[in-house]
Amino acid sequence: MTETALLARRKKLLGAATLFYEQPAHIVRGDGVFLYDDKGKEYIDLYNNVPCVGHANPHVVAAMQEQMSTLNVHSRYLHEGILDYAERLLDLHSANFDNVVFACSGTEASEIALLMARYATGGRGIICTDSTYHGNSAEVRKMSRVSLSGSPIDEDYRAIPFPQSYQSVAGHLQGEALTDYYLAKVQAAIDDFAENNIPLAGLFVCSIFANEGLPDIPPGFMEKAAAMVKKAGGVVIADEVQAGFCRSGHWWGYQTSGFVPDIVTMGKPMGNGLPISAVAASAELVSAFRDNTRYFNTFSSSPLQAATGMAVLDVIDNENLLERSAEVGAYLRAELKRIQSQSEVMGDVRGCGLFIGVEWVSDRESKTADRAGAVRVANRLKDKGFLLSNAGALGNVIKIRPPLVFKKEHADLFLTAFDEMLGEL
Amino acid sequence: MTETALLARRKKLLGAATLFYEQPAHIVRGDGVFLYDDKGKEYIDLYNNVPCVGHANPHVVAAMQEQMSTLNVHSRYLHEGILDYAERLLDLHSANFDNVVFACSGTEASEIALLMARYATGGRGIICTDSTYHGNSAEVRKMSRVSLSGSPIDEDYRAIPFPQSYQSVAGHLQGEALTDYYLAKVQAAIDDFAENNIPLAGLFVCSIFANEGLPDIPPGFMEKAAAMVKKAGGVVIADEVQAGFCRSGHWWGYQTSGFVPDIVTMGKPMGNGLPISAVAASAELVSAFRDNTRYFNTFSSSPLQAATGMAVLDVIDNENLLERSAEVGAYLRAELKRIQSQSEVMGDVRGCGLFIGVEWVSDRESKTADRAGAVRVANRLKDKGFLLSNAGALGNVIKIRPPLVFKKEHADLFLTAFDEMLGEL
Repeated sequence: MTETALLARRKKLLGAATLFYEQPAHIVRGDGVFLYDDKGKEYIDLYNNVPCVGHANPHVVAAMQEQMSTLNVHSRYLHEGILDYAERLLDLHSANFDNVVFACSGTEASEIALLMARYATGGRGIICTDSTYHGNSAEVRKMSRVSLSGSPIDEDYRAIPFPQSYQSVAGHLQGEALTDYYLAKVQAAIDDFAENNIPLAGLFVCSIFANEGLPDIPPGFMEKAAAMVKKAGGVVIADEVQAGFCRSGHWWGYQTSGFVPDIVTMGKPMGNGLPISAVAASAELVSAFRDNTRYFNTFSSSPLQAATGMAVLDVIDNENLLERSAEVGAYLRAELKRIQSQSEVMGDVRGCGLFIGVEWVSDRESKTADRAGAVRVANRLKDKGFLLSNAGALGNVIKIRPPLVFKKEHADLFLTAFDEMLGEL
Repeated sequence: MTETALLARRKKLLGAATLFYEQPAHIVRGDGVFLYDDKGKEYIDLYNNVPCVGHANPHVVAAMQEQMSTLNVHSRYLHEGILDYAERLLDLHSANFDNVVFACSGTEASEIALLMARYATGGRGIICTDSTYHGNSAEVRKMSRVSLSGSPIDEDYRAIPFPQSYQSVAGHLQGEALTDYYLAKVQAAIDDFAENNIPLAGLFVCSIFANEGLPDIPPGFMEKAAAMVKKAGGVVIADEVQAGFCRSGHWWGYQTSGFVPDIVTMGKPMGNGLPISAVAASAELVSAFRDNTRYFNTFSSSPLQAATGMAVLDVIDNENLLERSAEVGAYLRAELKRIQSQSEVMGDVRGCGLFIGVEWVSDRESKTADRAGAVRVANRLKDKGFLLSNAGALGNVIKIRPPLVFKKEHADLFLTAFDEMLGEL
């Protein structure tokens, strides 16, 4: 089937579902960091965080196959697998969590976290950022940029400008003064809820502000913001769906950003592609949720989720992917910074671990966001066999977020192509 | 680990997550309609609709294993698998659907259906029943009995009494008069929305009212109720999460109940345990949804969902499970009715296909619901090696809903145990 015919067939069956690239990629096979299209063209994957231990990882496939051949059933029967997995997940956290609630998607985890925060505090008000995305349900969409841009924000939510050092809305403030500027926005949201008799439930942020564009966070902001929210009676929810599982060079984004959340949500990479998500918190917070909801999720806390999740953790441990995320990420960031010194349009190179953002601008002086330029970069690199995308509040940030099994040798191939692409722009 | 220790460990790690049975079952292996506990005890599964083609079905396991070894990635690349699956799903419907939107859970499908109905009609008002459950998100929970019992229903929802012939709230009305009684409730909800300037979005019901207790629906009710809602500018959403995939002896519950929905949600059995759900509707309705939401779901529309879903459909076809659901279900229902004639506490035996409800009452005359009795039945049958549960608006309906591979020989074993259990009560 030609690509045109395939696109038409897709439109006919799925409607206008979103696609990447001017000429969409028709991917048929994956292996480690490589993806292959229907014509056999090889791509290095610099985008996909879900298959964190690599496409078609054999250890994960074997674990799934074994569990599916043995048992996969709902969680109203006893099963040890999910307990072993919950225990292992909790042990990976430096924050003091006791219990896990499993679900299938990041959206479902966000729903749980919102209910948990609200039942635990008795409050309703949630502070989020003005450029975030935590999922697609009716309630969770109230926080998302998609809904913010179209309609007034719901009365139970207040959006603060996300903290950043590069394209700051705070003029020329720097260092502590910049931190204070953003902290004042948090306090204003707390005060505004109080004035409107909306009791505070908490702060809900991606711990590394991934959708906002992975900004350099002004020093100490998250620690101080979390303290403010707790002082006002709220809880702090860290969305680790993108940030977690060694992505940032630490196990969790909250470690990278230096704060201690009360609740974390986890998702995307947990099952290397199997739908798994989870929420971890103290026993007190989880009780507030469970006692009020009698929550049950047909497909979650299953033996299949447990076996698959465990296999992913095995590979992360056995292949030292935490260390590699930090090391390969640092190498790639340093090399991109080297290239940046010769490029007027690479406004900023930043990130943590194997999550790097390159902000595309008209020029270094005006820093005018160049979304079209970022889109062009993604498309040209795709032609050269490297898959990535653009993201961020203004859509002008090149998003580099490969599977964790991405190595220095892959980085070098990418850097050569990137350099070449720059010369052709 | 002793059962007591296992329960304590579960409480410590998961909090107060719900469990079945006085002495919870510790299931470690499954095969077809059989489940086995840690001591090797064999159970015949009369409860689980999710593993519809049988526990650990080898054809499904092989398809998952092959796809996971090849590719599993998000849907912003082109892939033919999900198109083949969407086409096959659409072909199975007698209602006139064009497009499919895939998701992971029934809750997510309900969220999509609600947004679709609202964007398509421009309305907000949703009519549901007073004893339903369509999922656990903040928005979907507004329809659920769990939330109804605790808090006043949201202004965008009106709950009607679910249609039934046995424990009717309509006194001694029968036949058409009973139908008219329930239709008047639908009209009252439509009128109430109009009076409160809440434009109607639609009617959202399980097509066989499974959670309500699988009632005998007064004749013609669903067809006429659907017509009323459409005349008033709403759309009709059939929740096929429990009712679909041959469960009712037809492919879809709406065929069993005799109406044509505008939107269907599908879920539980689709992936035999892999999280898959979907919404099907006309191209016009799906456009209203996609254009307004730019909906994307990380784990859905994936090659893994497609391959697994296709394998489930293969087994249903190859093993004639549609016919078997109708035949074995009819046999089991007839035999239970025979037993009922000698039992004062089996108030009603009803259902469709391999979904049977037995209403437990104090006596035939007063029909007083006996929830404790139904719970006792489930526990005694579990001891005898047969797994089922109690359900329904009053919790007094024995719910018999085995995997579709359940055969006459399994029914006979169950009937013997059921008869024995009755004698011991």
